[in-house]
Amino acid sequence: MSKNPAEEVLKIIRSVVGNRDGFVPLHEPSFRANELDYVKDCIDTGWVSSVGSYVEDFERGLEKFTGIKHAIAVVNGTAGLHAAMVVLGVKENDEVLVPAFTFVATANSVRYCGAFPHFVDSEKETMGVDPQKLRAYLKDNTEIKNFECYNKKTKRRISALMAMHTFGHPVKINELVKVCKEFHIKLIEDAAESLGSYYEGKHTGCFGELAVLSFNGNKIITTGGGGAILTNDSVLADRLKHITKTSKVSHPWEFIHDEVGFNYRLPNLNAALGCAQLEVLPSFIEKKRNLASLYQRAFENNPYVYFFNENEGTKSNYWLNTLILKEDFLGIRDEILKLTNADNLMTRPAWKLISSLSPYVSCPQMEDLSCAKYLEKAIINIPSSPYLGEI
Amino acid sequence: MSKNPAEEVLKIIRSVVGNRDGFVPLHEPSFRANELDYVKDCIDTGWVSSVGSYVEDFERGLEKFTGIKHAIAVVNGTAGLHAAMVVLGVKENDEVLVPAFTFVATANSVRYCGAFPHFVDSEKETMGVDPQKLRAYLKDNTEIKNFECYNKKTKRRISALMAMHTFGHPVKINELVKVCKEFHIKLIEDAAESLGSYYEGKHTGCFGELAVLSFNGNKIITTGGGGAILTNDSVLADRLKHITKTSKVSHPWEFIHDEVGFNYRLPNLNAALGCAQLEVLPSFIEKKRNLASLYQRAFENNPYVYFFNENEGTKSNYWLNTLILKEDFLGIRDEILKLTNADNLMTRPAWKLISSLSPYVSCPQMEDLSCAKYLEKAIINIPSSPYLGEI
Repeated sequence: MSKNPAEEVLKIIRSVVGNRDGFVPLHEPSFRANELDYVKDCIDTGWVSSVGSYVEDFERGLEKFTGIKHAIAVVNGTAGLHAAMVVLGVKENDEVLVPAFTFVATANSVRYCGAFPHFVDSEKETMGVDPQKLRAYLKDNTEIKNFECYNKKTKRRISALMAMHTFGHPVKINELVKVCKEFHIKLIEDAAESLGSYYEGKHTGCFGELAVLSFNGNKIITTGGGGAILTNDSVLADRLKHITKTSKVSHPWEFIHDEVGFNYRLPNLNAALGCAQLEVLPSFIEKKRNLASLYQRAFENNPYVYFFNENEGTKSNYWLNTLILKEDFLGIRDEILKLTNADNLMTRPAWKLISSLSPYVSCPQMEDLSCAKYLEKAIINIPSSPYLGEI
Repeated sequence: MSKNPAEEVLKIIRSVVGNRDGFVPLHEPSFRANELDYVKDCIDTGWVSSVGSYVEDFERGLEKFTGIKHAIAVVNGTAGLHAAMVVLGVKENDEVLVPAFTFVATANSVRYCGAFPHFVDSEKETMGVDPQKLRAYLKDNTEIKNFECYNKKTKRRISALMAMHTFGHPVKINELVKVCKEFHIKLIEDAAESLGSYYEGKHTGCFGELAVLSFNGNKIITTGGGGAILTNDSVLADRLKHITKTSKVSHPWEFIHDEVGFNYRLPNLNAALGCAQLEVLPSFIEKKRNLASLYQRAFENNPYVYFFNENEGTKSNYWLNTLILKEDFLGIRDEILKLTNADNLMTRPAWKLISSLSPYVSCPQMEDLSCAKYLEKAIINIPSSPYLGEI
């Protein structure tokens, strides 16, 4: 073993991914199935845009895979989060609970509603929202009036919680469902990263009122750009189909739009890619889980970092494999990032806390965001493409 | 000639488009060029998402075609309108002048900014905003304070005008530029329908501060779903590139976002389609103009309708060919719609006035919207696909 901790980490990652020519990205899409056939079919038939059978097929495929009643395809995950809040009734000057430790789109979509993100802490065990801490915080800082939750300090209504399954690892979603019920807060699962991840045998995204998937280029399956909203509630599903398609009332030729609508439709061309990707999703998951087990073994008993393993009762898609620096070694993060990237192995830290970004510094937040702050400094995502875990 | 006016109109349309098997849509996309090759290239290389060379190529191609300095590709036209207003500084509780006679997305995008559409009348000559009427109206109903225009009645600032080139026919854009300057109002051209249309030799979309194109499936070229923002202003262009890509600050690995951003990026897969379509756009325009001249001749001296021909000094892409019912024959519109659609010729009326839709009835509007009301009742769009005008 080398004496330099960062060099040792590099060596271990390299021992798992092997000596490969060229750049090894964090997560590379794979198009070796029916992608070209389905896309060619769109072009041959002329159905590339917002109406087409692949959109339907993709939605039905997502329903079957996740076990949800309704999947509504949308143009991307951010659009999905926004539409989800609109139909749940998130209003101007409401507050929405958002983990400080997540991607910025979540907070942005809250602002699109004219509401404010209210940042809460995560826990090390899941990298997601800490249910115990949240309950204690809400107890102290909110009051219930007419079955609605109000922030005592700002007097604003707290209408929803966005709970994310970070890097594919399920948050303690059953606990969060309970907390949300206790405090009359609606629950949206940000499942952008967790297609193929399960909590107690049930697919993530099937616990909250609504959930949102992403099919951006770096996700476990991709449609180029795209997303979907999941719900078991038929009324919400109908509303979502309506407002994401410009709120047009069905009529053979008249243009009647009965509320402010959005152009959040997923084009058929992109859905075609999604249909092909969905067919091979199980094999992606198998390879990614195999890769994760290789990393897990390779980093066992490492003095500097530990490999984030799925929690008991959960099954993770291991979308992005994650190293966590131990408390005493936070200082070597940037050196690991530099060494690995210089060696053509793409690695990156997690997001900066949204609560610290200039557009959001003045938004309400838990005084104690200590775990989120630790995760911000401690996490390194490492190469996770399915092909690295070929069995 | 038949004695039934609607039957006569049907016969004339049929005489132009010929006896064809099956349904003749309003505007069908054509993919006989490099579409499949470019899309295949995305799939083969794995670059399908928001980063990729086709996005760059498409933007540069649009710049070259229109003669604008900067084109910024976005996920659709609605997103483009929204982003355009954000960078022009349209704020909550502002008003934005919008033709009552246009597609609802324009008003929706105003509401996304928290601003209110303020509906203005069109003129028969262009089907677009009437500059004389607008000037007179602004003179009577607004006041200028600190080089900004205020609605005397609502006290709200009027920050912008959205001027649309309806069905591809250029509005009197030079006159509107003058009115906007006089009243310190920013001008956004809604060029969603007018790619390939020129006003006094200059491409539509090159007159206002910003302009927005659409590449929806029914447009003259399509990317499945997509749009672009055009501007000659480098500062606005930089701002647009930033906020449409989540406002991420460039850094090798850190996630820093310095303002509320949007996920309005066009995926590379869709841009690839756009690149191929742009190559054959000149031939589409040629065929569409030929089809329009056939319609023009066929409807010459018709007692019931006239064919909308391009105005002097303009060159139209004739995106959607348009019949206008003469005053005395407004009553036969629905019969024409029924007969033609029953005969597999797709026709449709224009939009209902946005000012009459439930989400917008209480928004400010000109008392006299008489021309818009006439156009709403008088217009029938008829089949316009390039293949119908093959030369």
